[in-house]
Amino acid sequence: MRVDVYPTVINIPPAEELAGKVAVAIDVLRATSTITTALANGADTVVPVLTPEEAFQVVRDNPGRQFVLGGERKSVLIPGFHLGNSPLEYTPSRVGGRPVLFTTTNGTRAIRRAGSADTVYVASFLNAPAVAKALMDAGKDVAICCAGTHDQFSLEDTACAGAILEFMSGPGSHLILNDMGYVARELFRRHNGRVADMLHLSEHGQNLLKLGLQEDLLFCAQLGTSTLLPRFVSGQVTI
Amino acid sequence: MRVDVYPTVINIPPAEELAGKVAVAIDVLRATSTITTALANGADTVVPVLTPEEAFQVVRDNPGRQFVLGGERKSVLIPGFHLGNSPLEYTPSRVGGRPVLFTTTNGTRAIRRAGSADTVYVASFLNAPAVAKALMDAGKDVAICCAGTHDQFSLEDTACAGAILEFMSGPGSHLILNDMGYVARELFRRHNGRVADMLHLSEHGQNLLKLGLQEDLLFCAQLGTSTLLPRFVSGQVTI
Repeated sequence: MRVDVYPTVINIPPAEELAGKVAVAIDVLRATSTITTALANGADTVVPVLTPEEAFQVVRDNPGRQFVLGGERKSVLIPGFHLGNSPLEYTPSRVGGRPVLFTTTNGTRAIRRAGSADTVYVASFLNAPAVAKALMDAGKDVAICCAGTHDQFSLEDTACAGAILEFMSGPGSHLILNDMGYVARELFRRHNGRVADMLHLSEHGQNLLKLGLQEDLLFCAQLGTSTLLPRFVSGQVTI
Repeated sequence: MRVDVYPTVINIPPAEELAGKVAVAIDVLRATSTITTALANGADTVVPVLTPEEAFQVVRDNPGRQFVLGGERKSVLIPGFHLGNSPLEYTPSRVGGRPVLFTTTNGTRAIRRAGSADTVYVASFLNAPAVAKALMDAGKDVAICCAGTHDQFSLEDTACAGAILEFMSGPGSHLILNDMGYVARELFRRHNGRVADMLHLSEHGQNLLKLGLQEDLLFCAQLGTSTLLPRFVSGQVTI
């Protein structure tokens, strides 16, 4: 079973190379952690859109639906949106039973780029063990698509890919990894048990700390608190 | 002093972000190891060209010059070329006093993309300590541009970036690293003293072994055997 890890959106291979595989999209800080939390708290669906304009257009095209608009640009709330990109904002009272239109700088691009695979899971540290189990059960080749930050490698996304690989590893699993996969697993092993410290060390984590968002870091550092398997199907993430 | 490491050619930032910095181009297997060796063995200059056609055009445009044509596509000799991409081929008798036109799949692209920086060094494990010293002496911000392999992360290039960072690190050096730089230095530390083993483990190394090129791996794994500082200036690499 072959598992390739791609460090940023622009390193994700073209659609034809993803066909027949299972893909995993990761943006630990904070898009995929937030999507999982929104669904855990009862959101009906999360629709990744690439731009705020695309979100407003969907609202205009569907006047009968009570969309929640969520996401960020440069880590802050988008004008006219209801919620930012903090998982802590996506409470049951705000998102329960409602569809969420969601746009972020890196994460939603990664999900859409991964979308050419047969199955696409949305992963974060929260559900990494559950995603690893689903990948082993599927038994197909895997493409783990890290969002990265503005097309640059980010520590936390690759470490999360490494967490999934670590949970997939064991006697009889026979994983064949690309170089990035090898490094990702080593990176996770180095920080296992200290994921929150690693997020504090990362460039993106440092930026969020400057914005006063330490609670988000601590939330996103929780390993295996969710067994949800959010899937991106026909343009929507659902469970 | 800020040092950013970029894992592949497509992750190298646009020209305006490199202006004012010192760049380092790395393609351990084998372009930058071979360029350094060619210059050590007396080549007059090495001219990185993007395609074999560009090399043939330069030959036609300069009938008086005795060019050596070197490089590879898919790790093998290009039809009509004199030499492949093995550093062992670039002996004094073959390249001494002559200009080399050189094209490879990843390395020459990385050198040219790095070319917008104020100064561009060509580095490999062979001259990593010497390059590190030159960077510390310059005292400017640094962009370490790994070639990668077909726009994917490669273990050996990032580990070599890590070697340079390790040789730059120490009391009083105050390096500010991006996430890739942090991981690169950790990666080198993990394999320090066992660079040849790491090259054998890498995907690119495995491919070269299949082609019977183990001698190239062992050659490229030598750490600090050269004090040369090849620089890319006005389209040519010279010392």
